[in-house]
Amino acid sequence: MSSEETPLGQCPMPLNQVSEILMGHGSGGKLSAQLIENLILPAFRNPELELLDDQAIVSLNGSRLAFTTDSYVITPIFFPGGDIGELAVNGTVNDLAMGGARPLYLSLAFILEEGLPLSDLQRVVESARRAAQCAGVRIVTGDTKVVGKGSGDKVFINTSGIGIVPAGIDLSSARIAPGDAIVLSGTIGDHGIAIMSRREGLEFEGDLRSDTAPLHELAAAALQAAPDIHAMRDPTRGGLAATLVEFAARRHLGIEVDETAIPVRDTVRGACEILGLDPLLVANEGKMVVFVPHQGSERVLDALRRHPLGRDAARIGTVTQEHPGFVILKTPVGGQRVLDLPFAEALPRIC
Amino acid sequence: MSSEETPLGQCPMPLNQVSEILMGHGSGGKLSAQLIENLILPAFRNPELELLDDQAIVSLNGSRLAFTTDSYVITPIFFPGGDIGELAVNGTVNDLAMGGARPLYLSLAFILEEGLPLSDLQRVVESARRAAQCAGVRIVTGDTKVVGKGSGDKVFINTSGIGIVPAGIDLSSARIAPGDAIVLSGTIGDHGIAIMSRREGLEFEGDLRSDTAPLHELAAAALQAAPDIHAMRDPTRGGLAATLVEFAARRHLGIEVDETAIPVRDTVRGACEILGLDPLLVANEGKMVVFVPHQGSERVLDALRRHPLGRDAARIGTVTQEHPGFVILKTPVGGQRVLDLPFAEALPRIC
Repeated sequence: MSSEETPLGQCPMPLNQVSEILMGHGSGGKLSAQLIENLILPAFRNPELELLDDQAIVSLNGSRLAFTTDSYVITPIFFPGGDIGELAVNGTVNDLAMGGARPLYLSLAFILEEGLPLSDLQRVVESARRAAQCAGVRIVTGDTKVVGKGSGDKVFINTSGIGIVPAGIDLSSARIAPGDAIVLSGTIGDHGIAIMSRREGLEFEGDLRSDTAPLHELAAAALQAAPDIHAMRDPTRGGLAATLVEFAARRHLGIEVDETAIPVRDTVRGACEILGLDPLLVANEGKMVVFVPHQGSERVLDALRRHPLGRDAARIGTVTQEHPGFVILKTPVGGQRVLDLPFAEALPRIC
Repeated sequence: MSSEETPLGQCPMPLNQVSEILMGHGSGGKLSAQLIENLILPAFRNPELELLDDQAIVSLNGSRLAFTTDSYVITPIFFPGGDIGELAVNGTVNDLAMGGARPLYLSLAFILEEGLPLSDLQRVVESARRAAQCAGVRIVTGDTKVVGKGSGDKVFINTSGIGIVPAGIDLSSARIAPGDAIVLSGTIGDHGIAIMSRREGLEFEGDLRSDTAPLHELAAAALQAAPDIHAMRDPTRGGLAATLVEFAARRHLGIEVDETAIPVRDTVRGACEILGLDPLLVANEGKMVVFVPHQGSERVLDALRRHPLGRDAARIGTVTQEHPGFVILKTPVGGQRVLDLPFAEALPRIC
């Protein structure tokens, strides 16, 4: 095991003092980053993987292909606003779209736990079908495995996807630069709080629903408005904070964010306060963050706001050369704080 | 749920009388086929998926791309002759190769159970790395999820893969035709028996090892010898029997196989007798079956035998117009029997 420092080097516990997998290794926090950067990346190091973007862009007979994979282990499998089938399709569509690709083909692989009601599977399959239709992708290959009771949990789904990146589009976290405006497509925290409230049996006033949605149209609209966008990312596990902290650390650039500019629904904010959660750390499944050279930011904002999924879009911050590697949050009371990731997130199995 | 008959219509229990997932749904037997054909296929029906080959061939900017996915849930994760990491890479490499594709890029997605020793994960990652290197594929994208103790079982891996199908190659079970020779690349049953013996703590005389291996070179050699090969398949779950029965049913053609021509190691045959298993039903992870027009069969045999992974290759049978939909086995004692699949296989979680 490599003992080298990770880019997220503020971790309190080095990986070599942890001897087994903890829930936090899957949380999108520092433990996740350590596991990937210290154990997995060194084994397979290659230019595509090394970017640690949510999709690899590979060349294939002169085309640029985006290729991505995600496993979904969310619990419960049915939740307000969606289910694991829809989530698995949207999530992979979004990972392709965030690479600037037009999503085309998906694979769909189930790991089913013995005893799962077939009616549940049927509901999940139907929901995946609908989501694929909405996103204009074809599910062309699949797999089904079964494990005994207690060796799985109802349904796990892996979707992998391929898409084509149009000429002239080149997106990667490696491209973000000082002066980039940071544009967020809408409210944060909706997905994670909807799952959490369902899981804990909590009732909050107002409608808490996952924001799961396919972002391919929104991404295409943003790219049409500003083809020179540097990077896009859907802030899922670890929330908006994970995306910002990861990008700042990886590029060794500063990020300044105005907390008051970040849209959060009142119901989500209220639930977060009750649960002791920071909305910045809560997962989203239908939002995107765009890093675009300053002069393109208004065009991106306009384009996002014209789409139903982007009507709450806001410019939330800027990439700077100051305080490299750190995300500075301007708080509502006029102060500043360094945005950091928890060692392990409070919300396991959120996607 | 559709109540229509499946092509494997001899099933004793229609899907609509089963209300939950059984272990047999993952076995590669009739229950698996029912689940896929009655519940999953109808939702996503499209020309690529409908072929039910182990890989989809899709067009992309003028290239023909092979795309495949498989989840691996094998237990134990370390076994004689390999481990889940190597298996996950080889299995997906093989699904691409069986489509006539040159395997290029793989994704690698882990679902880890809380408490898994990091040293085990490291061993699996290292083994996947070595397998990818051997097969000449790049792992370019990945994912890591963690589930709580008792919600998973150590490690599940999904690998998806993409490859390019060279011009002039067109492989699919839909192309097999009367007169095709059936060529098998080597001994059967090695993988399943090695797993079974390790799992049950049985000791047999002789060396029982999984045959897990990448088949891309062997497949390329066969195609170079006979570019008009109709179909190739690696007979994994459900063994050689599942491949033959599935192909006969799907094409509504007869298949005649000479049981004495099928190579089986003495140690595997002995273990099968003790365990009450038919080697024809036992999984393989490094073998392929080739359906080739009669006149090409000797060339294919020669090509396979020149490769270390194909030195036991044998012609085992023929596709006919007789007894459409059925596989007839000529037994060693000169009799004949209809080869049928069990409702659910005796070997769960074999891959």
